[in-house]
This record gives sequence, structure tokens and C-alpha cells, in this order.
Amino acid sequence: MELASDYGSIQSVAMHGVPGLSDIEEAARRIEPYAHRTPVLTCAGLDRQAKCSLFFKCENFQKVGAFKFRGATNAVFALPREAAERGVLTHSSGNHGAALALAARNRGIPAIVVMPSNAPAVKRAAVEGYGARIVGCEPTVESRESTAARVRKETGATFIHPYDNNHVIAGQGTAARELLADVPGLDRVLTPVGGGGLLSGTALAVSGTDARIQVIAAEPAGADDAYRSFRAGRIFPQTNPQTIADGLRTSLSPRTFQIIRAHVADIVTVEDAAIIGAMRQVWERMKIVIEPSAAVPVAAALSGRMPLDGLRVGIILSGGNVDLQSLPWQI
Amino acid sequence: MELASDYGSIQSVAMHGVPGLSDIEEAARRIEPYAHRTPVLTCAGLDRQAKCSLFFKCENFQKVGAFKFRGATNAVFALPREAAERGVLTHSSGNHGAALALAARNRGIPAIVVMPSNAPAVKRAAVEGYGARIVGCEPTVESRESTAARVRKETGATFIHPYDNNHVIAGQGTAARELLADVPGLDRVLTPVGGGGLLSGTALAVSGTDARIQVIAAEPAGADDAYRSFRAGRIFPQTNPQTIADGLRTSLSPRTFQIIRAHVADIVTVEDAAIIGAMRQVWERMKIVIEPSAAVPVAAALSGRMPLDGLRVGIILSGGNVDLQSLPWQI
Repeated sequence: MELASDYGSIQSVAMHGVPGLSDIEEAARRIEPYAHRTPVLTCAGLDRQAKCSLFFKCENFQKVGAFKFRGATNAVFALPREAAERGVLTHSSGNHGAALALAARNRGIPAIVVMPSNAPAVKRAAVEGYGARIVGCEPTVESRESTAARVRKETGATFIHPYDNNHVIAGQGTAARELLADVPGLDRVLTPVGGGGLLSGTALAVSGTDARIQVIAAEPAGADDAYRSFRAGRIFPQTNPQTIADGLRTSLSPRTFQIIRAHVADIVTVEDAAIIGAMRQVWERMKIVIEPSAAVPVAAALSGRMPLDGLRVGIILSGGNVDLQSLPWQI
Repeated sequence: MELASDYGSIQSVAMHGVPGLSDIEEAARRIEPYAHRTPVLTCAGLDRQAKCSLFFKCENFQKVGAFKFRGATNAVFALPREAAERGVLTHSSGNHGAALALAARNRGIPAIVVMPSNAPAVKRAAVEGYGARIVGCEPTVESRESTAARVRKETGATFIHPYDNNHVIAGQGTAARELLADVPGLDRVLTPVGGGGLLSGTALAVSGTDARIQVIAAEPAGADDAYRSFRAGRIFPQTNPQTIADGLRTSLSPRTFQIIRAHVADIVTVEDAAIIGAMRQVWERMKIVIEPSAAVPVAAALSGRMPLDGLRVGIILSGGNVDLQSLPWQI
């Protein structure tokens, strides 16, 4: 793994095998026919609480209900035709699985999602609804990976990792690119961090566009591997995560960690109670549906733990996929 | 009460004491510094179900969370200075009460809302949060009206009816005016109907702009006074309404009925189960929070009961104020 001091600019990052701003520009062109250019909303009531001007990039309105569609679409459409025809494969049963399924359908190629047999019916239905084939596995990491390896061998499908993939990272960076284009004069951009795909893509887009803008990540205190890794300078894998933010229970990869170390100003943590409170406030005041993971940077902004007074702060609302039958504040 | 055949154009309507297009234009100028120009959203999934192109005018994103802020603001700012200084008064404990409170605060004048002593704490808090004074009454129509009359006499405040008021109607019409400006080539505009303020304002704005566009209202089957009145040609007051759409339990007034008869193409009814289903679909697919009343025209569009195939259909999503602690599909 490389250290941040090994490189000082986007160009040299690109030399070390991670995407550069030009890859994000290319991703933007590639996904433009398929992905929404999502709106940026504001809310006077939340501004008053956070004592700054918040600009919410609404990836909850993205296709499939999450930013994940950007990265998956970029990865699928970047494949050479021959590889594409053999299909794509992943083992995320969350937003990335659904996003990959729809991206593959848009290209007219097969998609396979490896999913534990005990996955919720609603997740299976989402992935199948977009036309992907589900291959069951045991609910263990070993079974998931061996099953994915077997399917890959049998079908020749290309494995698209949810975040440890340059095309995926570049695709996720297109959200921040749009945010910066739509909102001039931002001082900060806040995102959640799980595996680091959105954060690293955002950091590359922002630092490549205007190095004065700080990118700050927010992470659930109960799944704080990125926070600890960032401070220690080496990756701590996430073990036994305990958080309502189900999209953020994954570990950084060496690739995302490398980008984060180079281009992210800080990572802060927030407790689940604050995440749930922020999520509810966004629903009540902004009248939009966001998932717990999306509320994490909102909670950080409202917490007063970062010095944001008077600043212009972009927040990427990462997604809006929630089980409406049971909401976190009702439990 | 006048019959539809008594007049054939906006101009002659204005002569008969109801607002004309110029009043809506004036309202638009008057409320512009205070009200949001709300966005219009689309949803491919709902289009497929409704077999037409739906354009959702998001008044759930309006200040106070409902279109009511438009009419209340127009009424408050249309008052001559002397009358304004004595304050404004209403007896709606719902969205109109909160809207009038904020409009009055924006003008820097007092607002009083007469509210039954058993009104939910959350409604009291909303109205008080915008700086209005609450005067309690018994939970009967008689007590409400006698209390309002007493307060009016004591304070000299101007009573602003939730819908039986030309400035309120003209203000509500500004939403449709924006919708028509933002979405060219609409064939239909759908709204819910309760007391008829939104519907009559919409009908005046649409018919005054392009008489080829039909305005159609949707009403809960359990509170179908407007449907029955429209068909019979005379007002049936709403008695004992039974619907989850709490904003639509009121009766038409002679003023709103007159406009509706002249300029509305049809009124259809939908059952509560369809309203709840449509509300949930909007939350799940569009990731926005709408209240049951706003889901009524969506339910009508999805029901297939109106011939909408291939048309361009505007829907005014009237509001987004919901008790997030208990959602209709959880009951």
C-alpha cells in the first residue's frame, strides 16, 4: 500500500493505478444516457441548526435509489464488448447488486448476483426485478467468495466489486462533479464512508476540481474502521459492525484507503441515535426519503462537532432505500 | 349561486366576483419573495403503471409543507396596512393554520388560530412554532365559529378562510401557473379536492392559460361531497367524512363550487386503500414524503379509471405533512 506522501497531485495518483479527474469526466459521459442528474436541495430549517448553508445532492433520487447506480453503470459500459457479453457478477445483496442488475439490463447483458439464502425477500425481489439471476450461497464470507469464484469460472462473467474497482470509484465521483458544477463556492463536501467507493470518488472529483474544498467523511461510531484506519495510517478491517446504517458496515480496501489518505481532510464518527434523529429530520423538514447511511453526514453536520459556521457545505445523500414497514424511530 | 352557463370566460368570471387570471398573476408576484418555486419531478416506474407521462408538482416541498402557504401568503400580503396591523385569524388547525401563522410572521403582524382544546399537540406545536397565538374552543363547529367571532370582535383581526376567499384561491392557483410554465404541452392537470381552494385556483389558472387542458379532481370515496355536488349541480355539504385523507374532509363553498362547475372537466373518487397504496408507491419509488391527501390524484391516475393513455398529465402533490410515528400502511 502506498502512503499519501508518495504523491501530491491527481496526475501522480493516476500513475499509481487509481482514477484521475479525466476518468471521472469519462464516467460522466458514459453514464449520462442512463443516470439521473439528481437535483440539489436546500432547507432553511436545517441550515439554522447547522449554522451553515447545506446543499443536499439527492442521490436518493438516483435510479435504483442510490449513487451506486453511477459506479455500476460506468463499470458495465466500460467493459469491452466481448467481456460484456459474458455478463457481470457481484455478491452485494444491497444497493450495488440492484444497481449492477439494472446497468447490465441497460446494456443488454446478463448479470448474476450471489446472495446468501437467508437474504430478505425484498432484496431478492429488487435484484430479480431488474432482471438479474440470483445464485444462492451460505451466509458466510467463504461461501460467498467461493460461490462467486465458481460462477465466474463457469460463465466467464466479469466480477464487479462494489467499491474496490477503478471504474466504480470514477462513476461514484460523478455525483460530486455535478454538485460542484451546480453549487459554486462550496467550502466542504461531506459523504458517508463504508467501503470508501463514494468517498474516494468524491475526494478525487473535488480535489481535482478545486483543492481548497475539503472533503470530510462521516462514519457510524459502531462501524468506525475508516475513522481508525485514517488516524492510524493503516487499514483496520471492520469486524462485527453495530449500526443501523446498513450500507456502511463494510471495510475499506487498499485502493480506497490510498485515495482517502491522499485527498480526504478528516473522518468523524456519529452515534446511531444521532443518525436516526438526522434521518427523521430530513424526512420531516425536507419531505424526502433517505436511508440511514445517507443520514450519517447530516448527523455530523448537525452535531456541531465540525467547525462549519457560515460555510457552504455540500452533502451527498447517498440513497433512499428503506423498508417503509418498520422505521428506525419506531423500534 | 351562479351556473356554469352564466359565464364562458375568465373575464366574465372575474365580473361575477371570483378571481381571474390577472389575480393569479398578481398573487404570483406577491408571494414570490416568500414561497418556494417548487420543482416538478417525474418517475418512469409510475409512468409505466399509469400508461402516461406524469409530472408531479411538489407542493410537499413548499414552505410549511403544503400549497396552503401560497394562498395564506397572498391573503396576508394583500391586506391594506391598517387592517394588517390588527392581525389575521383563522380556525383551521391543519396546514392552513400553520401557513397563515408563517405568512403573518413574514409580514410582521399577529396571527390567531382558533383550535379545539383536544387538537393534537403536534398541530399546536406547528402553529405556535410559526409564532401564532392559539385560542382554544370546544370541539364543535358552533364553539369554533363563536370563538372566532369573539376574537375578531375583540382584536379587529381579519378572518382568512382556508378556501372561501378570493385571495386564497388566487394564491393556490400559482402552483398550476408554475407547473404550466415548467411543463409544456400538458393535456390534463389533476388535483385533490376538499374545500375546493386548490382545485378552483388550479382550474382558473389552467383554463385561463390554455382551455384545451382539462382539469380533473380526485376525491376520497369516503368524503365525496364534491363528486356528488358536481354531478347534481348543487352543493351537498360533507357530513361524517370517513377517509385517511385528513385534508379533504371539508365541504365546497358556493364560491369554489361556482368556479369548479365552470372550469373543471370531471371529478372522480378513489377508495382509501388505493390512496394508501399510491402514497406508499410515491414514497418508495420517488423517495419523497407526501401526505394522504396528496396521494388522492395519484391513486386516480394509477387506477386506470380515467382515459390517460399516452397523455401528459400534471399532478399537484398538495402536501407532505405526515405523522412519521404511525404510517397508514402500518395500521
